[in-house]
Amino acid sequence: MRIHLVNPNTTVSMTEKAAFAARAVAAPGTAILARTSANGPASIEGAYDGAVAVPGMLVEIAAADAEGVDGHVIACFDDTGLDAARALSARPVIGIGEAAFHVASLVAERFAVVTTLSRSIPVIERNLAVYGLAARCARVRASDVPVLALEEPGSGARDLIAAEIRAALDTDRAEAIVLGCAGMADLAHSLSLEFGVPVVEGVAAAVKLAELLAGLGLVTAKTGLYAPPLPKLYAGTMASLAPRG
Amino acid sequence: MRIHLVNPNTTVSMTEKAAFAARAVAAPGTAILARTSANGPASIEGAYDGAVAVPGMLVEIAAADAEGVDGHVIACFDDTGLDAARALSARPVIGIGEAAFHVASLVAERFAVVTTLSRSIPVIERNLAVYGLAARCARVRASDVPVLALEEPGSGARDLIAAEIRAALDTDRAEAIVLGCAGMADLAHSLSLEFGVPVVEGVAAAVKLAELLAGLGLVTAKTGLYAPPLPKLYAGTMASLAPRG
Amino acid sequence: MRIHLVNPNTTVSMTEKAAFAARAVAAPGTAILARTSANGPASIEGAYDGAVAVPGMLVEIAAADAEGVDGHVIACFDDTGLDAARALSARPVIGIGEAAFHVASLVAERFAVVTTLSRSIPVIERNLAVYGLAARCARVRASDVPVLALEEPGSGARDLIAAEIRAALDTDRAEAIVLGCAGMADLAHSLSLEFGVPVVEGVAAAVKLAELLAGLGLVTAKTGLYAPPLPKLYAGTMASLAPRG
Amino acid sequence: MRIHLVNPNTTVSMTEKAAFAARAVAAPGTAILARTSANGPASIEGAYDGAVAVPGMLVEIAAADAEGVDGHVIACFDDTGLDAARALSARPVIGIGEAAFHVASLVAERFAVVTTLSRSIPVIERNLAVYGLAARCARVRASDVPVLALEEPGSGARDLIAAEIRAALDTDRAEAIVLGCAGMADLAHSLSLEFGVPVVEGVAAAVKLAELLAGLGLVTAKTGLYAPPLPKLYAGTMASLAPRG
Amino acid sequence: MRIHLVNPNTTVSMTEKAAFAARAVAAPGTAILARTSANGPASIEGAYDGAVAVPGMLVEIAAADAEGVDGHVIACFDDTGLDAARALSARPVIGIGEAAFHVASLVAERFAVVTTLSRSIPVIERNLAVYGLAARCARVRASDVPVLALEEPGSGARDLIAAEIRAALDTDRAEAIVLGCAGMADLAHSLSLEFGVPVVEGVAAAVKLAELLAGLGLVTAKTGLYAPPLPKLYAGTMASLAPRG
Amino acid sequence: MRIHLVNPNTTVSMTEKAAFAARAVAAPGTAILARTSANGPASIEGAYDGAVAVPGMLVEIAAADAEGVDGHVIACFDDTGLDAARALSARPVIGIGEAAFHVASLVAERFAVVTTLSRSIPVIERNLAVYGLAARCARVRASDVPVLALEEPGSGARDLIAAEIRAALDTDRAEAIVLGCAGMADLAHSLSLEFGVPVVEGVAAAVKLAELLAGLGLVTAKTGLYAPPLPKLYAGTMASLAPRG
Repeated sequence: MRIHLVNPNTTVSMTEKAAFAARAVAAPGTAILARTSANGPASIEGAYDGAVAVPGMLVEIAAADAEGVDGHVIACFDDTGLDAARALSARPVIGIGEAAFHVASLVAERFAVVTTLSRSIPVIERNLAVYGLAARCARVRASDVPVLALEEPGSGARDLIAAEIRAALDTDRAEAIVLGCAGMADLAHSLSLEFGVPVVEGVAAAVKLAELLAGLGLVTAKTGLYAPPLPKLYAGTMASLAPRG
Repeated sequence: MRIHLVNPNTTVSMTEKAAFAARAVAAPGTAILARTSANGPASIEGAYDGAVAVPGMLVEIAAADAEGVDGHVIACFDDTGLDAARALSARPVIGIGEAAFHVASLVAERFAVVTTLSRSIPVIERNLAVYGLAARCARVRASDVPVLALEEPGSGARDLIAAEIRAALDTDRAEAIVLGCAGMADLAHSLSLEFGVPVVEGVAAAVKLAELLAGLGLVTAKTGLYAPPLPKLYAGTMASLAPRG
Repeated sequence: MRIHLVNPNTTVSMTEKAAFAARAVAAPGTAILARTSANGPASIEGAYDGAVAVPGMLVEIAAADAEGVDGHVIACFDDTGLDAARALSARPVIGIGEAAFHVASLVAERFAVVTTLSRSIPVIERNLAVYGLAARCARVRASDVPVLALEEPGSGARDLIAAEIRAALDTDRAEAIVLGCAGMADLAHSLSLEFGVPVVEGVAAAVKLAELLAGLGLVTAKTGLYAPPLPKLYAGTMASLAPRG
Repeated sequence: MRIHLVNPNTTVSMTEKAAFAARAVAAPGTAILARTSANGPASIEGAYDGAVAVPGMLVEIAAADAEGVDGHVIACFDDTGLDAARALSARPVIGIGEAAFHVASLVAERFAVVTTLSRSIPVIERNLAVYGLAARCARVRASDVPVLALEEPGSGARDLIAAEIRAALDTDRAEAIVLGCAGMADLAHSLSLEFGVPVVEGVAAAVKLAELLAGLGLVTAKTGLYAPPLPKLYAGTMASLAPRG
Repeated sequence: MRIHLVNPNTTVSMTEKAAFAARAVAAPGTAILARTSANGPASIEGAYDGAVAVPGMLVEIAAADAEGVDGHVIACFDDTGLDAARALSARPVIGIGEAAFHVASLVAERFAVVTTLSRSIPVIERNLAVYGLAARCARVRASDVPVLALEEPGSGARDLIAAEIRAALDTDRAEAIVLGCAGMADLAHSLSLEFGVPVVEGVAAAVKLAELLAGLGLVTAKTGLYAPPLPKLYAGTMASLAPRG
Repeated sequence: MRIHLVNPNTTVSMTEKAAFAARAVAAPGTAILARTSANGPASIEGAYDGAVAVPGMLVEIAAADAEGVDGHVIACFDDTGLDAARALSARPVIGIGEAAFHVASLVAERFAVVTTLSRSIPVIERNLAVYGLAARCARVRASDVPVLALEEPGSGARDLIAAEIRAALDTDRAEAIVLGCAGMADLAHSLSLEFGVPVVEGVAAAVKLAELLAGLGLVTAKTGLYAPPLPKLYAGTMASLAPRG
């Protein structure tokens, strides 16, 4: 099985970290095809970054589909461009945010999310509401760690994240923790040991869910929100993204 | 006052129709600066079209801000790219979908939306849920009229729309109608006369709301979801959209 | 255009303050016809005051309609008698509470309300729920300022209100503030400057929305909740309010 | 025990029918003090009638409290003026609508309401939402019987009501029926026998709940929404309703 | 009238305390038939205890029905086995949790629950959500008193409960208190006096509601969730619980 | 890896069918330990059957844990006893209903459930609400096929199910189908081919999710709803189920 993991931001080191997390959990026969968007922001911190990142990511989805893959994982916790990718691809697509929320819902009645910047909280809260899982989430907390600081040793990022986990367990009645950024993938195991609670990391969850869907022969429904785009002209810099029907 | 009306699809005739509707309701001192995206789909019918349309629209938002405008109207009923535009601009931004929903809520306890294709229903339903107004909407109905058919005389589009309005009033207990596409702007008045109920059209509603916000000196909140994008590198074809902080 | 602004309490100084706020934002051609209810409580602080205030207010609505106006604004943040007024009048009716909530929703994902007494909180929360906008409101805060104290210089009212705004921004993640009493209309501008966030005041918002609806030729839907009252006998002191059909 | 049953409309025959239903279920030691509002509409059919009816009803509440009663029942299915009455009185107050909804919730997972005119549907739906029981109600159906027709033998009212019950059971998956008008109180027993399902009638339910609350020594909470009105001047025709604190 | 009060745990002293509370409020002609489950946990503290307690309780329900009773009260605040009991019995069944929530909703807009252990909070919150009354509950608080400690004089249980009531009134804006355990039935009166707010205790509320339903001739709806179990074989230790149709 | 699949009803042929479906999708290294409850109903059709089935199932959960397994699957679409099983076991537990809902949510915005008897609809609707996924489900439909008829060739069951799928796609706007009974596991593939939409079957979904959780080292959170039962005495026939702490 081949799973395409696409980083919708353009920072290769984040792709590598996510790919490492993906390969650590992939089944023996699963190859992880990790790609980085070539067009868009270096990190996704808010709605503007997220919106501009989508076309570059869709280019990678289309390319991977053309090469032949069994599923796609979008390696940004905001699930950037998830609906568009599902409409585009004939293969299952999983966002690491939704993956983490669904998996956390299977091991806890009530979880908390610990993300990077407080500006990311509204996007995550909206996604939880759209997916239906808002009532399962006690609170979305920000650790005030910029996304790229997660790539810097000595940034103190882990301590800030741990402090928010402590607060979530002590004051939010959270029973499990969801790490709210692809860049935190390497911290899940040690944080779970430290706090003695389930810590769900989205890259791992998404890769396993993509394997699950592909393994069961399930593909995205093609009526409604995920109906394939109709063939039409796209103008200017977007001409090459025009759907061919 | 100068209001920038941006058509996020690339079909100039739709821009012109929307601009006509906008100018018909604009206050005497309001100039409508109508722009068409140069980069993206010819029409927005579903999540893929919508996602690819956003960067091209944001280019127009930034350009209009640089020229100096008092507010922006996004002339697509899906409110394409609304959050990103609000994060980008220092001026108020109104989507014609949200404008129509809010205005309809002020004249009816319960309204119905009549849109073009059934593939647009899920996007509209999601927006209603996100805005909080889902309970005010009796039903979103599709007339099975393609967006571009609205531009063609003799397409029978008006009859199909009228049939859905009749059904909404008779079977959904709708008290008012929202027309769910910018391309229907020219039909609102005659449909309201025909059915004797309020018919809300988004372009007009949005232009007046943009005037309202600008007139009251209200600008978009700049913490939370609409926090300005942080300065960072954008790569490839998106490099020119990088926020400058 | 003539907009009827009705104060459902019987304190003329509050009507004057609201009328001042209304005229400050009214379009050049808009006349504000400000009226004070002659029958009912001196201020509206809770459900009992509110209920008794309605018939007196409806008398003013009917009188203004008879004189000929283009719309009505109910100048009490509780939107006292809004449904009954909509059923009665052939013209648009806007409550200043709903006006503020809808306008705030167009400039912020998440706002807070700062009102006078804590006994007003449940009414406001219920209105937010009924309108559908409860999820957009981070919290309704009371400043413990009695309504009539807003009319007294030196009452310290502004400081108490400012303290609640500070708390809303710091602890509720509010991005914008709605002032929850008609008597606060004169504070909006200076508080917005002081805190650097949008501060929405209901009288101004409602006047502009009334102009908007009237300008677009939109009237209240006349089926469902706002169906005109059926002609019938009213007894006793209410005989003169009987609908004539 | 003395229970005050107040009819907020001014039609004495409806008071008598409700009083008959009340006395039929009252405990041996319970006296029903039935009063008719002297000021207001002859029937309550929509928001305008309802709003004008409230002060006249509050006069009766205050008078009964002065005479000494153990609780009040508001004999209009819209629960007209319920919040104001709770704020005013030191005794429990029950609306027949809420009584019926709560009692139906104890015998069925899912009930339907059959009311008189379709214009009453929105008020009932809103009450259900405010009380929290909207999800328990499959549908509110109107039988198109005017309230006063229930008082006329040979009006065919019962057949129209029965037809809606049949539809509710067959197509709405309702398991129990709530009769949505005080004037239907005499039909509950025969309809329950005819259809073989629980049929809940509000007057009976409310009288028993008022006995229940009074018997348990429970009175309305006096902070929050039901805080007693503050002493203040009321002007004009409402002067005599001013709270004395 | 005969009301069967069943304690789904096997601790006789708790049954006796609940029976005492029940008899203290029962109408003159009402006999309380108090039974203790013979099979199951000594107390119900969480989902596992609750699930294992149900068959033993259903045995008592069936036995009481065979003897002839007019209604059943389940004397555990979790409403253990309520749906199954309703499906089984031809008589009304009331859980003390739901009874308390519905009664509290009739005297307060917003109540808080004070229960025993924090592990009970999620079950109570879920019940509130299922019944529709979650929005009426400000917060479920735990006093960290084990259920059986309520049976021990000198355990300090009352002080811990009082402290949570104080916090609920001061910080949760609760207007009334629901005591969240059958073992607290003897504390309601003194706590209500001490805090000057309504304190609702479930045993009393449930007994009166059972009398109410039986008095009105209302029985549980027998389609949908409470449809009688179909006759079929039950194996092993459960064979004697097989429905006979 | 060893996954324990427990059939909470006592019909061995249903266990075998579920085990067949489980083994068909299990990973090469996964052994399916299929067990049938020895104590309880022959099928679970409604709340009474479900409640009595739980202790017998918990016996199997405990036994399998003692033997050593990596996770449990509850092979009843009602997710019978799921919370209790999660509280009891140290291993992940997945219900086939929740598994199907979560998986369907990853391939469709909007799915429908087709179950057996209409009496099962309320239980499934409640589960959807509790999990948060009610808004994702267009409708729960019953095919009026008794559970055990699914075991009988020539019962016409498949045709009845197919008719409901057709209706769900045509009138409910469903984009994918969830089969609402473990006994339908063998029909998923052919129905998916026939209708050209994703058809999700719970046994397969649950087995893969159990593998996923176990593979990621995730166990159920042990605070809150799933806190382990406290050691205490259990009386009578339930004595052997007493938690040992």
